[in-house]
Amino acid sequence: MTGNANLDFVFHPKSVAVVGVSPSKGYDAMAETYVRALIECKFNGPIYPINPKGGELKGLKVYPNVKDVPDSLDYVISCIPAAAVPQLIKDCAAKGVKTVQFFTSGFSESGTEEGRRLEAEVCELARQGGIRLIGPNCMGVYCPKVGLSFAPDYPTESGPVSFMCQSGGNAIYFTRYAAQRGVRFSKLISFGNAADINENELMEYLTADPETRIIAAYVEGFKDGRRFSQAVRSAAAEKPVIVMKGGRTEAGARVVASHTGAMAGSAKIWDGLMRQAGVIPVATLEELGDILVTFIYLPVPQGRRLGVIDVGGGAAVLSTDVYVSAGLDLPLLPQELRQKLMGFLTTDAGLSVNNPIDLAAQYYNTLSAYYVMKAVADYDGVDILAFHLHLGINPPFPSFPKEFAIAVLDNAIRVHNETGKPMVVVIDQITTVESWETAMACQQKCQQASIPVYFSVRSTARALDRFVSYHEKRRD
Amino acid sequence: MTGNANLDFVFHPKSVAVVGVSPSKGYDAMAETYVRALIECKFNGPIYPINPKGGELKGLKVYPNVKDVPDSLDYVISCIPAAAVPQLIKDCAAKGVKTVQFFTSGFSESGTEEGRRLEAEVCELARQGGIRLIGPNCMGVYCPKVGLSFAPDYPTESGPVSFMCQSGGNAIYFTRYAAQRGVRFSKLISFGNAADINENELMEYLTADPETRIIAAYVEGFKDGRRFSQAVRSAAAEKPVIVMKGGRTEAGARVVASHTGAMAGSAKIWDGLMRQAGVIPVATLEELGDILVTFIYLPVPQGRRLGVIDVGGGAAVLSTDVYVSAGLDLPLLPQELRQKLMGFLTTDAGLSVNNPIDLAAQYYNTLSAYYVMKAVADYDGVDILAFHLHLGINPPFPSFPKEFAIAVLDNAIRVHNETGKPMVVVIDQITTVESWETAMACQQKCQQASIPVYFSVRSTARALDRFVSYHEKRRD
Repeated sequence: MTGNANLDFVFHPKSVAVVGVSPSKGYDAMAETYVRALIECKFNGPIYPINPKGGELKGLKVYPNVKDVPDSLDYVISCIPAAAVPQLIKDCAAKGVKTVQFFTSGFSESGTEEGRRLEAEVCELARQGGIRLIGPNCMGVYCPKVGLSFAPDYPTESGPVSFMCQSGGNAIYFTRYAAQRGVRFSKLISFGNAADINENELMEYLTADPETRIIAAYVEGFKDGRRFSQAVRSAAAEKPVIVMKGGRTEAGARVVASHTGAMAGSAKIWDGLMRQAGVIPVATLEELGDILVTFIYLPVPQGRRLGVIDVGGGAAVLSTDVYVSAGLDLPLLPQELRQKLMGFLTTDAGLSVNNPIDLAAQYYNTLSAYYVMKAVADYDGVDILAFHLHLGINPPFPSFPKEFAIAVLDNAIRVHNETGKPMVVVIDQITTVESWETAMACQQKCQQASIPVYFSVRSTARALDRFVSYHEKRRD
Repeated sequence: MTGNANLDFVFHPKSVAVVGVSPSKGYDAMAETYVRALIECKFNGPIYPINPKGGELKGLKVYPNVKDVPDSLDYVISCIPAAAVPQLIKDCAAKGVKTVQFFTSGFSESGTEEGRRLEAEVCELARQGGIRLIGPNCMGVYCPKVGLSFAPDYPTESGPVSFMCQSGGNAIYFTRYAAQRGVRFSKLISFGNAADINENELMEYLTADPETRIIAAYVEGFKDGRRFSQAVRSAAAEKPVIVMKGGRTEAGARVVASHTGAMAGSAKIWDGLMRQAGVIPVATLEELGDILVTFIYLPVPQGRRLGVIDVGGGAAVLSTDVYVSAGLDLPLLPQELRQKLMGFLTTDAGLSVNNPIDLAAQYYNTLSAYYVMKAVADYDGVDILAFHLHLGINPPFPSFPKEFAIAVLDNAIRVHNETGKPMVVVIDQITTVESWETAMACQQKCQQASIPVYFSVRSTARALDRFVSYHEKRRD
């Protein structure tokens, strides 16, 4: 396939069949998981489980063959062994299926002659039958708008991010991780071996897709490096594009070959191309999460000058080193403003109204802290307000009690709501299970207020530098 | 004070008074927290709360003045305002107190003439009275052996690490964080402004201290750079020394000045000195935790060749890139061993017995996985086994159920127990509060088996590289 085909139909099927359901209740019973995911994520059309023995599954009639499905059938998920796949494609073609997605592995990624031959045969059969293929060796599509999903716990709301992710495992984990951090997806596709639908077509499709505001990509290799770099360049001219390249090292490239059968290519050439294209590179999925929450929640700041509201002198020292090393500025506050800030504070023991502002015990005085933050937010010598919520620094508490943490945070949220100043919140020092509950509750409050949350100063610093750099380049 | 005084008495007082207890129940009622900490951490001597009004606190008689304490008094914690401190020192001298520790701030770190004058006066009074001072502007000592503590939730067991930490907030948080990760302390001291007992004397004392096997230090500035670099060099010749330097950037140094009043010095000169001394540098408290668990739990490996047991192709690709970029090797396994490994596995869908070994669905087959790991552990072409426990990669589960995670992990622990091969466990993909419970339970199992645990591949890679490099240098 070449050309910028509109892949809308791939992401928005009206009916889905899952082939290879079985009575097994083992943890690897993926076909049943697909059926459950479609039900739980509220797929907005009929779901047809397929098994030659027929029967019933989760209240749904099981059909012996896709050809037995009584109505039209758009999309088929294959969980049967690789050797049985050619016949499935023939049946799908007879039924008029538009897309077949293969959880099934054992094709070119196996490194065997037989696997490569089988993959080529399947592609040829699909082409003849007018069917588009996803995979093989992948999880397929998550599109909350229509309830298409591969895991039962994924959010049912849509969002601005689309993620093309060559790896199935990375797609599974990242969707959960990102959901927890307040990232919602328009479309997510795990495309495995990319035997038919590949990274070029997907990048072109997402570039043109009006529902995709931000493109994230995890790619292991390229069918056509020149076309992909062109596609990425066009994409990055339209919207933010964040790319993770798997197999950057020689050893990593070797792992890629046995994972999706892709050729990883040279990291050096790749880096050069991506830099020219204006793409934001990331190296881990957690970094990708940091960048996404920044693009989703943070308004574009005027510059890279941070005003940091902190508690604890040592924490303020380390944060400053980390922020400044990452290329951000912490300007000294003018004497007039510092005097104003001191006026809000009833004691000066341990506190410092330099930048970072270390409020010491006054941090917990929600009224004083509010006025301090408000005054810093109103000061136009600072572009972004960074509020640090350390959960483990208060001696009496094994970790900050939830209600108390929320009361302290509410001050920052109030300032954000009143001033509209770009604000980030760092929640860290999470040492107990209870403190994770507190952190999750605080993160949710921030998401409701459209404030990005990070779980370490280092993550914050890296994400902010990349975000600001991105916008600086676009202003040039 | 100069010379290598034996500071044993500072860490092992037989009685403690807390001056400045009050009826306030506010969150800043630190004096009460000190009393509570001494009770909860089982201080092995009498505790005397002090307030001019007398009365009772937590079942303890409150004395109006340290001079009124009926028995001898070794150690005094001051929580009164700075201006009242000179009189306290006079009273302590009259009582024969050996150590006074100041939570009290408002001395030289305030940047005022009055603060500097007061600090000098207090030092002179202490010198005349034969009293050693900790601080001012600090949390003081945590020494579990005698139950001296500044937070009620700290562990009561001792361990091999001693931490001299100029910052109080960093000391509070890090003790909690490290405790959760299985680090136990012999001695920890937050020493603030270092007006009397300072980084030089502490480094010398810990070097000579037989109970201290590993020294960690957070320092913001130096009273005498030459003496400190000499002290560090001597320390590093005896035991592992890990140092965090606060105020590495110009902006960070400015924050240091208002935190502990210290002069931060040049990061460049500092780095050179530390490298020469064989010190391990770290930049965040979490990195310090990673290094400490490595030194405590990991046997010294023969080299830097990792064998990685993983689940998920994309995860294996990213891990490989991260490990190799950090300077570790992932050698290809010989054909013979790979054939042996394949013999333990009942299916080959998606799996790869290259290194990383991606067990795919066989990862959950605890019997097969055991034999695979055992064979890799027995292979002498691999120096360290890295077991990856990803909690968020299994599609049916929002996160890996605890019992299941433990069953999978038990395999690795069994291999470790049977072979003694150096092993590390990475627990990651933690997206829910439940998955934190699972992670904590798994971490605890590993600690019991003397296996270090990390929460990201990147942390693991950095810690392993530093640990191996440290031992490589010592072998040269």
